[in-house]
Amino acid sequence: MRIAVDALGGDEAPEEIVSGAVAAAKRLPEDEILLVGNEARVSKLLGSGRPENLSLHDAGNAVGMEEEPASALRARPDASVAVAASMVRSGDADAIFSAGNTGATVAAALLRIGRLEGCRRPAIATVLPFSSPVLLLDAGATTMCRPQDLLNFAILGSVFAERYFGIESARVGLINVGEEPGKGDDLAKESHALIRNSGAVRFVGNVEGRDIGSGEADVLVTDGFTGNVVLKTAEGVSREIFSMLRSTMTASAVTKLAAAILRPRLMKMRNHLDPEQYGGSFLLGVKGSVVIGHGNSQARGVENALLGISRAGAGLSDALQQALDSAHAAPAGGGA
Amino acid sequence: MRIAVDALGGDEAPEEIVSGAVAAAKRLPEDEILLVGNEARVSKLLGSGRPENLSLHDAGNAVGMEEEPASALRARPDASVAVAASMVRSGDADAIFSAGNTGATVAAALLRIGRLEGCRRPAIATVLPFSSPVLLLDAGATTMCRPQDLLNFAILGSVFAERYFGIESARVGLINVGEEPGKGDDLAKESHALIRNSGAVRFVGNVEGRDIGSGEADVLVTDGFTGNVVLKTAEGVSREIFSMLRSTMTASAVTKLAAAILRPRLMKMRNHLDPEQYGGSFLLGVKGSVVIGHGNSQARGVENALLGISRAGAGLSDALQQALDSAHAAPAGGGA
Repeated sequence: MRIAVDALGGDEAPEEIVSGAVAAAKRLPEDEILLVGNEARVSKLLGSGRPENLSLHDAGNAVGMEEEPASALRARPDASVAVAASMVRSGDADAIFSAGNTGATVAAALLRIGRLEGCRRPAIATVLPFSSPVLLLDAGATTMCRPQDLLNFAILGSVFAERYFGIESARVGLINVGEEPGKGDDLAKESHALIRNSGAVRFVGNVEGRDIGSGEADVLVTDGFTGNVVLKTAEGVSREIFSMLRSTMTASAVTKLAAAILRPRLMKMRNHLDPEQYGGSFLLGVKGSVVIGHGNSQARGVENALLGISRAGAGLSDALQQALDSAHAAPAGGGA
Repeated sequence: MRIAVDALGGDEAPEEIVSGAVAAAKRLPEDEILLVGNEARVSKLLGSGRPENLSLHDAGNAVGMEEEPASALRARPDASVAVAASMVRSGDADAIFSAGNTGATVAAALLRIGRLEGCRRPAIATVLPFSSPVLLLDAGATTMCRPQDLLNFAILGSVFAERYFGIESARVGLINVGEEPGKGDDLAKESHALIRNSGAVRFVGNVEGRDIGSGEADVLVTDGFTGNVVLKTAEGVSREIFSMLRSTMTASAVTKLAAAILRPRLMKMRNHLDPEQYGGSFLLGVKGSVVIGHGNSQARGVENALLGISRAGAGLSDALQQALDSAHAAPAGGGA
């Protein structure tokens, strides 16, 4: 698989991006890593230890974090993320990764690579790192959704989760304010009926906020507004509890001693909850694999994101298109 | 202040409800607690230790947790929560508390007590117990909201938070997917402009999910769908982290020892995050004070809820109506 990496996007670019890309190249001898960015800057960082399956592709600067994505891409068609997207369109790459401006990555993917057929709008699919990890989509690409969008997200999320988590038959839930089918706003009610009647996915029904980490679903579907709020609330609450925990543990010499005993296990727990263990979110609904890293991605996050892209595989895009095609061709009401 | 308590509503009714009501009566010598429920059952629990400011008022059974609220209330007009609501309408009580079927409490309040003027729909206001507590509304009363509803929630939440938290000038934020005013779905965009231009509250703008516990707002406004998902996600994530923490601490004899040292402080931290420390959510937008306890309310939660009702005061309803009136009378664009 050929993965184009935007070497210049992200707060810690290019150093951490290049370092993560090199680490991933070593762990993925079957794949090719194509670093996209200013050749002089990037090659200096690579030095002499460049793995054989890592190559360099010249491009202009990254789109800045504060820039308006569409106009930045129009003004600078050689921006690193745009060049990476063009490589997917031309067939020179199968996937792109960028930790730069999220809007620019989404725009470059939509404008240069294009959507899957039958998919009106894309979704950002993010792993919530609970003890049973769960894929949340849409985490913020499409704030205004229709029921058909949520059905598409259910199909895309299901196929993706099976490849990414290596599971047999992904269970899909709909985020809602109650378990009963009649609960929720109009979008939730209509989406529930549409997904259930489609028979296109293994639908487990509504899932309430308090059960998103309970392991009853592998995939959680919602609109991009709710999904973004869920994701960020989960991050905020987790950060808040760890901050209280830190105060608790540093309160006295005795608590510090107790904390020192627990530290290795607490660090392990914290790492488990760290989004960097996945390193990026997939933009599903576009051709090719498009992965958005965190703005502050470190080498470990970049490496994990590239391993995830390889795990989902070069056939991801075709598999998603096939699933959409067969769901849209099937008569409604034909399933579970 | 006269607080009517549904003695029969809730999983632990009537024992825990009565016990919490007795404890609150002792701590609120200026107020009156009116226990509403089957006189024979309740008076047996009270025994001889009944405080002077606690009285008993006969009523039929509670609306069950699984019953359809509206039809249950129609069929049994003497249900305990309905009798309590009627006491507010007739002027015999200022407030009601029920840990029973939430839908039945909301329906009884709307049908028997009625809404404040200018308030199309009510909101459930819940305290999120972060280190700086924040009032979230709507937590689930109105899943389909209009911008005007969110402005009303901002006004109601602001007045309530000042009385309940004892603060000077409550800062109000709008839950959204980004900080910039142009972010979000149509409801969020239009509500942002409406609240900002109203000048009716001290508006601090959009607040993202990750910042709900950061203390930048005292009141967070959103529709009942998003609010319910936020509340339950926060509960779910908190429960998940504490469960991981428990596994970490009981992993070996040595970690158990360390955990024993930390236990008192961890319990304090856990209690701080426990929703029972507030004990109930206010239904704002109706006349009188209407408070919804958790279904599994224990005596401590009931006691805290009644203390909170007393703190918000008998004048709450008038203060809320006044704030709505003056906001609706003011020309738009007159404020901050």
